[in-house]
Order: sequence, then structure tokens, then C-alpha cells
Amino acid sequence: MTSILERRQKLLSPSYRLFYDDPLHLLSGRGAWLTDVHGHRFLDAYNNVVPAGHCHPRIVAAIVAQTERLNTHTRYLHDIILDYADALLATFSFPAQATFTCSGSEANDLAIRIARHITGGEGIIVTENAYHGVTSTTAEISPSLGKSVNLGAHVRTVPPPVAGTDFAAGVRSAIVDLHRHGIRPAMLVVDTIFSSDGVFSEPAGFLIDAVEAIRGAGGLFLADEVQSGFGRTGTHMWGFERHGVEPDMISLGKPMGNGYPVAGLVCRPDVIKKFGSNIRYFNTFGGNPVAMAAAMATLCVIQDENLMQNAHSVGTYLRTQLARYKHIKDVRGAGLFIGAELTNGQLASRVVNEMRARGVLINASGPNENILKIRPPLILSNEQADMLNDVVGAALEVALANE
Amino acid sequence: MTSILERRQKLLSPSYRLFYDDPLHLLSGRGAWLTDVHGHRFLDAYNNVVPAGHCHPRIVAAIVAQTERLNTHTRYLHDIILDYADALLATFSFPAQATFTCSGSEANDLAIRIARHITGGEGIIVTENAYHGVTSTTAEISPSLGKSVNLGAHVRTVPPPVAGTDFAAGVRSAIVDLHRHGIRPAMLVVDTIFSSDGVFSEPAGFLIDAVEAIRGAGGLFLADEVQSGFGRTGTHMWGFERHGVEPDMISLGKPMGNGYPVAGLVCRPDVIKKFGSNIRYFNTFGGNPVAMAAAMATLCVIQDENLMQNAHSVGTYLRTQLARYKHIKDVRGAGLFIGAELTNGQLASRVVNEMRARGVLINASGPNENILKIRPPLILSNEQADMLNDVVGAALEVALANE
Repeated sequence: MTSILERRQKLLSPSYRLFYDDPLHLLSGRGAWLTDVHGHRFLDAYNNVVPAGHCHPRIVAAIVAQTERLNTHTRYLHDIILDYADALLATFSFPAQATFTCSGSEANDLAIRIARHITGGEGIIVTENAYHGVTSTTAEISPSLGKSVNLGAHVRTVPPPVAGTDFAAGVRSAIVDLHRHGIRPAMLVVDTIFSSDGVFSEPAGFLIDAVEAIRGAGGLFLADEVQSGFGRTGTHMWGFERHGVEPDMISLGKPMGNGYPVAGLVCRPDVIKKFGSNIRYFNTFGGNPVAMAAAMATLCVIQDENLMQNAHSVGTYLRTQLARYKHIKDVRGAGLFIGAELTNGQLASRVVNEMRARGVLINASGPNENILKIRPPLILSNEQADMLNDVVGAALEVALANE
Repeated sequence: MTSILERRQKLLSPSYRLFYDDPLHLLSGRGAWLTDVHGHRFLDAYNNVVPAGHCHPRIVAAIVAQTERLNTHTRYLHDIILDYADALLATFSFPAQATFTCSGSEANDLAIRIARHITGGEGIIVTENAYHGVTSTTAEISPSLGKSVNLGAHVRTVPPPVAGTDFAAGVRSAIVDLHRHGIRPAMLVVDTIFSSDGVFSEPAGFLIDAVEAIRGAGGLFLADEVQSGFGRTGTHMWGFERHGVEPDMISLGKPMGNGYPVAGLVCRPDVIKKFGSNIRYFNTFGGNPVAMAAAMATLCVIQDENLMQNAHSVGTYLRTQLARYKHIKDVRGAGLFIGAELTNGQLASRVVNEMRARGVLINASGPNENILKIRPPLILSNEQADMLNDVVGAALEVALANE
């Protein structure tokens, strides 16, 4: 019998990678739990794609009802796209308009098209280990993809906002360097929780001067909320809000449809006006009625079940617990987006794999892969946080013993 | 009360466009029929996204079952992605491996990344009015998006394969021109039914010399099967097959999941090997279990219900009927991808709108927008073809009277 790994190697592109030394072969999911084909249960503390938990009944019901009724596209009128846009845009404190895509990559890619069209510039500034997507153009602004993927000639990187450093100073230097090369700045893009850079959230407000700098140079500011959006950071619906800035564009993705492929780009009307009147944008599946039904149900569940508040309270509790491990050098993040820094990437990898063996799923991130990335569904309970914390402790102990 | 058009203008980006002078406000769909909010029924002869018809029970059931069970991603093992890849790749007569994305744009964009990585070249050759996507890089190779969207500096266009012309000669000239500019050719891309160029399918075999030319120059050949794939052309599962060529890469999209957002790129193993070992590719929603369940059910329905054969017989019948209208200069295409050429775009636009008023949905295409584009679900019956044909006649009469 051909093993599943052999089948995969034969049938799928070699670009595919699996998590864990002992990959997970999954069958079903419910709430914060995943079950594999052997009947083993795993606490999912990693997948931010399901903020409401796996297979949330209300979201499943919305997807089923609309799938049975109609699934077309945005060149016909349909109420659900407008109802959802209305509900989504009501979460922003400034006027905005929505465009819907299939993926966060497509949303960021569209933002680049818009920024370059509007500003006439080409230069894009990102953080040193940023991740913004896998299209040709978003991969060019994603240094975290590794050295085999070239950065674009018009891309400049800046140091991440490590506590105590001046983030805006890096942005100002990058602007000077772009000008020195005759490149007009088009955009500063940041993932507002700086996930792949290692999770940086403090001190609140560190984005203000950077946004002022890019605007002063004629560029736009894109807040990539694919990681930090939809209440994950606990105190605000959007990651940029904690820093008191108003972006020109906001990209949305992963958690938006609780697993259904849906993403989008929110723009200030004055920003999108010129692009929109010059250039039509049609995305076959983007904003289709089922995607919008999934997104609407997800947003309603996040709001009605107070998932942001839960992310805040359980996240605060969990960070306090994690901070008690002396081998965790630093615990960062906000709400249920948590980075726990270990001394090195090998140790983090061992912890991640030991935790998987003990039934809890997390991963590691950061330029040195030494930051435990903990990103459970927003429904996580204190009891599940206790389990997670205990397993971190047990895994750390074994991993350290093998160092 | 705010009208739906005003709500749309307020909430959505001005890049959105609607079909028809009197836009359609839809509520439900079943088979080849769509129903609007006023209870009016429309024969859908345009939407190739639903090859099996709207809300096909077997496909809906597959989506529902998997949505209720689990929806994660490709960094865990799951059987359904392998079962589907197996079934999909069995439809090709040569060895291949699959990568899954959310949209045809993402698939073509990935093909560009791969071609440039492998060949070390940048040059891409497309037809004069090609459409390959809306990401930054695919928009740069999509002249049909209009003059407000710049083609890339490394992109060359060639005349479409109008009957009696030498398509390969254009490709060879483009290669010479690329070399003259010091640009190494990376890829020739064609939509194998040449949809946005005006629908060209005859004589079978006209791609052979063009493919030989791009390979001779060190480039790859990408068959964009987003329009012509999955049996639509009636005699073959894939549009390239009618021309007797074997592409290096094949991009799939629209019809793949009967409306569920799923797309993909199929590559020959020797082509993808170098890219795959150097570069990881992860697409959050691409290849997720629900997308794969939708795609599997769609492929099974196409095969089990003989939809390709139906596309052939009903398409042949419909083309014969349409060819009897003296104001239709030419009827082209294959299977249920039909282009009916009128004298000018204004007339075509009037016919499209008059048909909509009479309950049949089609559209116009081609560089002069004068080709009626007829692309119904592959389940279309002869009776529905008769209705379509009658409505074309009635609409033509009214449209001509107003010329």
C-alpha cells in the first residue's frame, strides 16, 4: 500500500511543505479541537483561520443555506455583499469602501496596484522579515519567504519595532534611500502585529511617526490585518487601532470567513476614487454570495459571542502563565496573538514537536524561528489555556533535557 | 429608502462594474436557470463557473458534508486533496503534479513565478487581447484590461490565431523582438480557446509550431485552461488537446469547483522540480478540504453525467442554428464555448441587453466587443438551446431595427 506521504510526493508539487516531524493526518474538527485519522484529539492553538472555532454551527449553517440557494458573482446585484460590506465598514471609525478577493495575497497585491497607480511611485517599504503574500508582486515584498525568493528592486526593508527602538527612523532612512535611487515611495506596508518578524505590539503608538513619514514622502500606508484583524488582539477589532493611526488601505484575509476562502481590501474613498474610475476590478470568486454569507456569519459570531473580549481575557491570562517559565525569555503580543521567545530556533522546533506529541498544536516564527507562535481560535477557554500552558511546560522540560 | 445601486456605490469600491443596462438582482439558481428578486427566471447562457449548473445537488452535498466536518490547509495531511489530485491528473496523458490556489489569477501568477525562476528569463508572450488575471503581474500580461492598465516592459503581444493566419509567425517575431531588447523569453501563454481575443479554435493544430518556437528559445508553454478546461470544448477535457500539444504548465480556474473558490496549476514534474526544491509555496485556502471536496464532486459530475459529450452535441446543434442568422457574420468555438460575430460592438451590446430583457443571459467579447460570447452550463439541453437561439433571433431583430 502506498503511504500517504508517497502519494503526496507523487501527486503534489514539491513546493508543498508539511508541519511537524510527524505530520498530522486530520479527519475532523470542532471548536478548538482537531481529530486525526487515528482518533487522537489535538487542541488547536495555531490556526487563526478559524476565529470562531472549527465548524462553528452558525457559520456552517450560513454557508450551507447560501450554497443551496445561489453562488454567482459581483457583476450581478446581490444583497448579501452589501449587507456584509455595511457590517464590516461599520467597524471602522472613518469612511471606507470595500473590494473583495479570494485571499490575503490578492488583497495585498491589489493594494500594491492601487498605491502605484495613485502615487506614480514604485517604492515599497516593509519590515525585515515581513510576509505579505505569494503572488509574484507580494512575494517580492515578503523577505520571510527566504533568500531563494528575490526582493523587488524597488523594495526596501526596515528593522522591526523591537521595544526601545525607533521604528519611524528606519522608515525615514528607507525613504531617503529610495529617493537616492530615484525611486518615488508608493507605500509603507506593515502587518500590525508583526507576526513573522517575531510579534511586536508595544509600546502602543509606535506606528504614528512612521505613517507620518511615508505620507510626507507622498506614499500611502497599508495596514495588513490578515494576521491581527477581526478582534484577535483583544482590545481592538483591528491591529492598527492600538497604535492610533488611520490607514489609507486595510487588507483582510485568513479569519474573515472562518475557513471559507474570502478576503478583501478596505480603502478610504478618496484613495480608491482615482483607481476605481480608471480601472475596473473583477475577481470571479471574490465577494460571491457564499463567501459573503460565510464572512457575515463569522463577523456576527465574533461580535455576538464577544470573541474579542474573550481573546483579551484568556490571552492576558495565558501570557501571564507563560511568562512564569524561566526559559521563555519574553512573552509578547496582544489578545490571542502571542509570541513566546526562546533562546534559539532548534529549541523552539523541539518544543513545537513535543507539544504536538502531547496533543497541542502551535508553531514557531521570527527571523530565527525561535518565537513560539500561539494563535488559537478566539473561543479558547481558560481551561484550554491551562492545558496549553501545562503542555508548554512539559514540552520545554523534555526539549531542554535534549539540548 | 436607499436603492441597491446607491448602497453599492456607497459601500463598494468604484472599480466594480455591473452587467446590463438594467442590472440583474439575483436571488436563487438551479440548473441552467437563475431567478431574480422579482421572481423572473433567466436562462443562464453565460456563466462557465457552474459547468454542472447552479446548485447541483451532488456538489452542494459534497460541500456541505466537508464544511460540517473539517476545513484546514495543506500543511496537514488530508486524503481528499490526494484523491482529487489523483482524479484530476488522470485526465492528462502525461505525468504531472498539482498545486492548488484560490483563483485562476493566482494560478497564472504562480506559473509566471515558476517560468521566470526556471528559465532565468523575464519575457512573456501573450495574444493581443489576452486576459490572464488581475494580480499585478497577471494584469501586466492582460491587454484586454484596457489601456489604463500598462503592459509589463517584458511583455510582447502577438496577433490572435484568426483563421488563415500563421500564429507561430507572430510568436517567432515576438521572440526576435525580445532578444533584440536583451530580454530572455520565459513563457508563451495562451487561453486555448482565445476567449477575450474573440474565440478561435480552428484549424486544430495551430499551436504546434508556436509551442516549438517558444521551446526553441528556452521558454515554457503555459496553457491557460481557465476558460476552455473541464470539457467545455466538447471533444476534449482540455482545450490544448485539440491542438495536439503538451504544455509545460496548465492553469485551471473558474469551473473547477462549480462556484466554490478553487483553482490550480498543473506542471510537468521536470518543470516544477527545480522551483519546488528551491521555493516553498503555501496558499492558505488553496487546496483546503472543502475546496477539494467541491472540485472532486464537480469533476465526478462532469464525468458521470457525460457533460463533455453533452457540450459537444448541444454545442454543435446550437452553432448550426446560430449560423442561420444572416446578420451573424461568423459562428466560432467548440462545444459550449461559442463566439458569434456581429458587425459591431454597439449592435452586440444591444443584442445582449435585448436578450436579457427576454430572459436569456449572454455577453459580448473580443477587442471590438462585437462577438456574442455564449458559454452556458454544460448541462444545457437542446430545448434550452432552442430557446436561446429563438431569443438571439428576436433580440437581433429589435437591435437591428434600432440601428
